[in-house]
Formats: sequence, C-alpha cells, structure tokens
Amino acid sequence: MIGIEDEKFIRGKIPMTKQEIRILTLAKAKICTTDFVVDIGAGTGSLSIEAAKIAEHGYVFAIDKNPDAVDLITRNAEKFSVDNIVIISGEASESLRQVPRIDIALIGGSGGKIREILQAIDNKLKIGGRIVANFITIQSLANCLDWLKTRDDYDYEMIQVQINRFNVVGGLDMAQALNPVHILTAKKIPLKQAVNVIKLPEQKVKTAQVVGLRIGNS
Amino acid sequence: MIGIEDEKFIRGKIPMTKQEIRILTLAKAKICTTDFVVDIGAGTGSLSIEAAKIAEHGYVFAIDKNPDAVDLITRNAEKFSVDNIVIISGEASESLRQVPRIDIALIGGSGGKIREILQAIDNKLKIGGRIVANFITIQSLANCLDWLKTRDDYDYEMIQVQINRFNVVGGLDMAQALNPVHILTAKKIPLKQAVNVIKLPEQKVKTAQVVGLRIGNS
Amino acid sequence: MIGIEDEKFIRGKIPMTKQEIRILTLAKAKICTTDFVVDIGAGTGSLSIEAAKIAEHGYVFAIDKNPDAVDLITRNAEKFSVDNIVIISGEASESLRQVPRIDIALIGGSGGKIREILQAIDNKLKIGGRIVANFITIQSLANCLDWLKTRDDYDYEMIQVQINRFNVVGGLDMAQALNPVHILTAKKIPLKQAVNVIKLPEQKVKTAQVVGLRIGNS
Amino acid sequence: MIGIEDEKFIRGKIPMTKQEIRILTLAKAKICTTDFVVDIGAGTGSLSIEAAKIAEHGYVFAIDKNPDAVDLITRNAEKFSVDNIVIISGEASESLRQVPRIDIALIGGSGGKIREILQAIDNKLKIGGRIVANFITIQSLANCLDWLKTRDDYDYEMIQVQINRFNVVGGLDMAQALNPVHILTAKKIPLKQAVNVIKLPEQKVKTAQVVGLRIGNS
Repeated sequence: MIGIEDEKFIRGKIPMTKQEIRILTLAKAKICTTDFVVDIGAGTGSLSIEAAKIAEHGYVFAIDKNPDAVDLITRNAEKFSVDNIVIISGEASESLRQVPRIDIALIGGSGGKIREILQAIDNKLKIGGRIVANFITIQSLANCLDWLKTRDDYDYEMIQVQINRFNVVGGLDMAQALNPVHILTAKKIPLKQAVNVIKLPEQKVKTAQVVGLRIGNS
Repeated sequence: MIGIEDEKFIRGKIPMTKQEIRILTLAKAKICTTDFVVDIGAGTGSLSIEAAKIAEHGYVFAIDKNPDAVDLITRNAEKFSVDNIVIISGEASESLRQVPRIDIALIGGSGGKIREILQAIDNKLKIGGRIVANFITIQSLANCLDWLKTRDDYDYEMIQVQINRFNVVGGLDMAQALNPVHILTAKKIPLKQAVNVIKLPEQKVKTAQVVGLRIGNS
Repeated sequence: MIGIEDEKFIRGKIPMTKQEIRILTLAKAKICTTDFVVDIGAGTGSLSIEAAKIAEHGYVFAIDKNPDAVDLITRNAEKFSVDNIVIISGEASESLRQVPRIDIALIGGSGGKIREILQAIDNKLKIGGRIVANFITIQSLANCLDWLKTRDDYDYEMIQVQINRFNVVGGLDMAQALNPVHILTAKKIPLKQAVNVIKLPEQKVKTAQVVGLRIGNS
Repeated sequence: MIGIEDEKFIRGKIPMTKQEIRILTLAKAKICTTDFVVDIGAGTGSLSIEAAKIAEHGYVFAIDKNPDAVDLITRNAEKFSVDNIVIISGEASESLRQVPRIDIALIGGSGGKIREILQAIDNKLKIGGRIVANFITIQSLANCLDWLKTRDDYDYEMIQVQINRFNVVGGLDMAQALNPVHILTAKKIPLKQAVNVIKLPEQKVKTAQVVGLRIGNS
C-alpha cells in the first residue's frame, strides 16, 4: 500500500513531495504492477520508490538533473530495497529520449520547462497512459493547461490540495499548514474518442525494453 | 489500487465521502489483505467497497443505521462485485457487539456519538490496529481528541484536508471547493510502549470468525 | 467600516463577491476618502458600494457589460443610499475610456479579457495608484502575472484565500467551503524606483472631473 | 483603513496575528470610533494598534501576561503614535476586572483558558457588544463553542480562514501557506430577542470611565 511516512526517507536539502500529496498522486496515476513509469524531477525519490513498489513487475525511470537528488534517490532505493528503479541524471526532456515507451509519467518538478517536458513525455507515452503532475507555481500550471488545450488526444482533471498537519503543543492540537499543490491528471486517448471524462484504465500490454543504468543488486 | 471515481458509485440522498478523502483515509489505514475492517456510518458504501477490495481475504463490516444507506451499500457492493462486505443495519455502538475482533476501524460518520463509538471500537480493536476517522464537525473532532487524550494505549496523528476541484467554464479552469475534512489516524499500542509516533503496521495474524449477514453470491 | 453581510445586498443570478473576499480586497486597496475608484465586472455592486462608502468624497465607476448587473448595482446603490457611484454599462476596456484618471482599480471579474483590461486601466491609473484583482480562473491569474512581469513600473503581491463558513446542523458546527479566490495587489510606481516591495500609499491630490451617468439624487 | 503590513510592526519571538487575519477580525468586530475595546493575548499589539486607530475616540485595553509582549505592545504603540491603548500586564480573567464596561472584545490568544476568559468578558460586555476570537487549537475553539451553546444571549457565526502568500522564486509565483485560523464572531443580544442571525451594530453610547495605565504622551 502507498503512504510511506515522510521521515522514513533519507532527506537532504532537496524539497520532498509530502506523504499526502504522494498518496493522491499515486492514486490518480492508477499504476499497474507491470507498468513502465517515468518520474520527472524525482528529488529524494520518494514518489519513485512508492511507484516502484506498485509497478513491481515494471520499471520506474527516475530523472533528475541535480547530482544531490541522484545520490538521494540511490540511497533511498537501497534503503527500501527497491531494485526496479532506473536513475537517470540529466535534463528531463533529453533524458526522456533514453527511456522506452511508458505507461505513466509522474512530474514532481518541472524546473520552469513544463512545455518541453510534456512534449518529450508525449513522444513516449502510450495511448491510454497517464500523466500526473504536481505544480507549486502558477506559471508551470498555466503552461501545462495551455499545452493540454491544444491537444485533442488528452483528457484531464485537476485538483488543488491543501493539507494542514496537527501538532500537539501544550496538550492542544494546533494546525500547521503545508504548502498547497495542484495535482493535474491527464489521460492520453485515441484521437477520435476525445471526450471530457477520464476513463478507468485497462491493463496495458508491455512491449518496451529497459535501457540505462540499473541500480541495486541485479 | 484505491481511488474509484465518485460517479461510479450508485448515489442517493446520503452524503458520500469524496474520492480524495477516501484515498487518504485508506492510505492512512494501511489495510492488509487479510484484515477485518469495520466501517462506521458507511453511507453509500464507497469507503467499505474500496476497503473490501484491499482486504480481499478479510472482511469489511459496514454499519449504518439508515435503511437508505443499507440499501445503497448493498447495491454498490453488487455493482462492484465485492462479496466480503457484511452489512449491519443498526446503531454503531450496538452493532459493533456483533462484530469479531478487528484490525481496522474506519469512521465515516459518527452521528454525534463519537465517544460511545470509540469505546465500542476499542472493545474489538486488536493491539496494533488502527482507527481512521473523518470529521466534518468541530464537536465530534474535539470529543474524539478528548477521548484519545485519556488513553495511554493510542498514538494518533491528524490532518485537515481541503480539496478544490477544477471545472472548465468557457475554456477557463475554475476551482470549486469541497468541504474540508479532518482525518484522524489512531494506532492502538501496547501500554508500556506508549510514545507519540505512529509506527508502521506489521502483518497481523487473524483469529476472528465472521458473524452476521453475508451479501453477494457466496 | 467595511464588511456588509452578503444577505444585505439585493442579489440576482449573478455571482457575488463574498463578504470576506470584499473585506480583504478593500483593505488591500487602501482607498482614501477622496479617491476615484473603478470597479471592473461590478456584478451585484457589492464591492462598488463598500468602496463608495470609503471614498465618500470621491467616486466609484462601476462597469459591467451585463444589463442584469447594471440593474442590480442601481438597486443596491439605492438601497444603501450611496450616491457617488457612476454606473457604466459596457465592455470594460471601452468603458474605461470614459473614466477620468483613477487612484484605484478593483477587478471583480475580467471575462477572459484581463490583458485588455489591464492595459486600459494602466492608461488611467495615477502613479501611486493600486490595482486589486480577484481571480477565480488559473488563466486570468496567469495572464495578469505575465502582464505584470513585463512592466517595471508595478510592484505586486498576491494571496490565495480559502474561507470555510460554519453552519449549525443538529447542534454541531459544520464547515461549508467557499470557492477559493486569488487576490492580487499591484501598485504603480515611478519607473526609477521599481523595487519588489509594496509601499504604503500617501494621500493623493484629485484633479479629475467626473463624467458619465450619475445615479442617486444629485 | 485597516491592513498595516506585517513587517511594519516591531516583532520579537512572540507569534503575531497575520495581516489578513487582522483585517478580517477587525472587519467582523465592527468597531466604532468611540468604542471601548479589550484585546486579550495582545502579543505584539498588532491587533490592538489597528483597533485603536479605528476607536480613535475610545480606548483599547491590551492584556497580555507575557512581559515580552507588554514590551512589544508599548514599543509598537509608540512607533504608530497610538495613545489610546491601555496596556495591562497580567492574566486575562483577572486583568479584565480592572477594565470598564466594553463594547468589543478581541481574543488573539487564550492560553488554554478560554472559558474563564469568556466569563470575564461577559461580565464587562455591553448588550449589543461583540466578541471576535481567533483560534489556532481545536480545544479552545470547541470550548468556546460549548460555552456559547449554553448561552441564549449570544448569537455567533464562525469562519475558518486559510491564506497562501505567493513569493516569486526564479521568476515564478509560488504559494507559501500560512497556518489556518478560525475566526468566531459572537454578538451579545437582549435575552428575549435571541435569534440565530447576527445583526448590524448600531452606534453605542459611551458611559464608561478609563482606568489603569495610560501610555503615550497624554
């Protein structure tokens, strides 16, 4: 099951997607056990690791350009004994060229380059596949929506999530706000069936081959 | 995976726990495949059905005093082909007497009787078991916290969740607010190890026997 | 003082800015008693009327293209005995040409034309003047931010506001969510002093003359 | 007008009510120019100072038991040249005995003693007067609601406010959450007219005399 507590992950100075956002992101992604998943802006790897546990017979390609992030993902993958994560160090849109056809794209961070990333994802995403993106800036969110509105082969839905966590201070329960996140879920559909409703995913057939750096003991 | 869309459920006039709240509630509950789960104030049965799909080798006891709710749960369980839900029509604290020892208690609604419900749950909940409760009123929330503070054998954490869903109106993405919900997660711990941190659950051994009305074709 | 209750206003089918949003919008606008204020997308006139009570020796120009809105503003201005509101029926950017130099621009709604509106406001807004805009769509918000980023003579700050109102149901206090609103406050500054901090406004000297339709008994 | 920026106040280690919460609190309080106001848990004095500017011909009694707070209130009152604030150092319920009959009670913090504070306020509050309280813990909020429900001579309304402020990071606008606050507004009404709606306040006649320590140059 999804929902590893934040403090279980090895953390550096890199911001981490919080547990509740990870839970909702993964639930919206509807990852299957054999799925090929890409995680853009993987950061500490928290989302990659939870995705890899669900896609136990598939792979997660964790992409980040920050060497500290690559190090953290490696260490967290080891800590959680996850061996189906392929870590790719580099710019998102370039790194995506090394990746096989994918079922699911998670976008944890886009570094102000959401349009290029969406285009690169689209080149790899199977029909029926899903993109689930977290946004913390208005501009990246708006650019993603702009891109989607030019495409008839994607349906999408979006939510904003605001979580307050409670701490006990002097015996009283006091709310501490987490920063709000927009979670956008887009599904790639055959062009002719373009409608405004996201459908339930069917089990997808895998044909892709794995490339790149494999971590763990395999 | 959790996260059935709201519109998939047969709905009546009874308020339904929204998808995002169900996702977070179920993730916090950390239900195992063999768990015995009780769902108090089961309403449309949306939470019960998702719980039953996770606890595929266990049972979910869905309790509601409203005959309309009992009817909706029955119809939704049939729609989703879930046959490990036991529907109990009656007051929560009385109905809980008919239930075997449980691993997980979900509280979707408490009808202003949260203290009696917590006491009745506590009589059935195994050590290591979890209570995950959704609150929409200040009083039920405060009474639950009061009860927990008298108990050394429960650790808890709490979040408030506010979800805005976006609709496209005239080509523009516009937020529509859902009502906020507090989600409280309490774990029953051995008295001597009482600390303020919720631990990861270990797989629990089942010894309970099923009682009551069984629905479906089994 | 600001903060008229929502139910005091005559309301039609037109959405009304809610009390708490009006309060924050007006406080951020820092309207002076002699200010000339324009209210774009005035709707029911709730914001115009509260602004007119503050700018008691100035004027509020309430612009809306919807005839039902014009009617509602007229009736509400009469109800609240406000006689310094000039109601202009028409498209925002065209109507702004009829307006004298202004100190404050309030934007309650932009009908998908925020760029044209901002340009038309800018033509009339004095240096030191403020724009306070409410946004309910991502696109209008993003377009406003884009416009501001091209201008060295505006400083801005932005907040998102989410209000939950409580109703008593069965003796218990239950939250009901209002839709979230972004409130953006921009101050027009002399080009050479462009810095990233919004300054307190000083009292402004009035030289403008009033044009257009005057309501009330003057 | 209300709405002094947070950074204008001299601040210490004491938590300060944020600008947007102050704005809404003061608007809900509907303070008149001649009102006698008490501010419980005055902290940095930010709320007291804004209230004192509105009640320019009345007085604000700023009560706090923390010596650091008393010092901060004094310095901020001097900074803003407000001379109608009476600072009282001591426990809220005891200090309230020194205060004359009041029109408005603001509660910024209750230190876990909300019931005693409400009782002490009630002894001084005129009929038609208002209590506006900010809550950051579930328990204080619930206790306040409990107290109000035992009283037929108070009407109340409540909101929860969540503010996200945007910062520009790398040219992109990013939300930073402030902790949520519940704002409860109660109006003391003649016993026989007890209804569930808060009425608009009428101008009140002053008869009270000022006691206690006067600051400033008067």
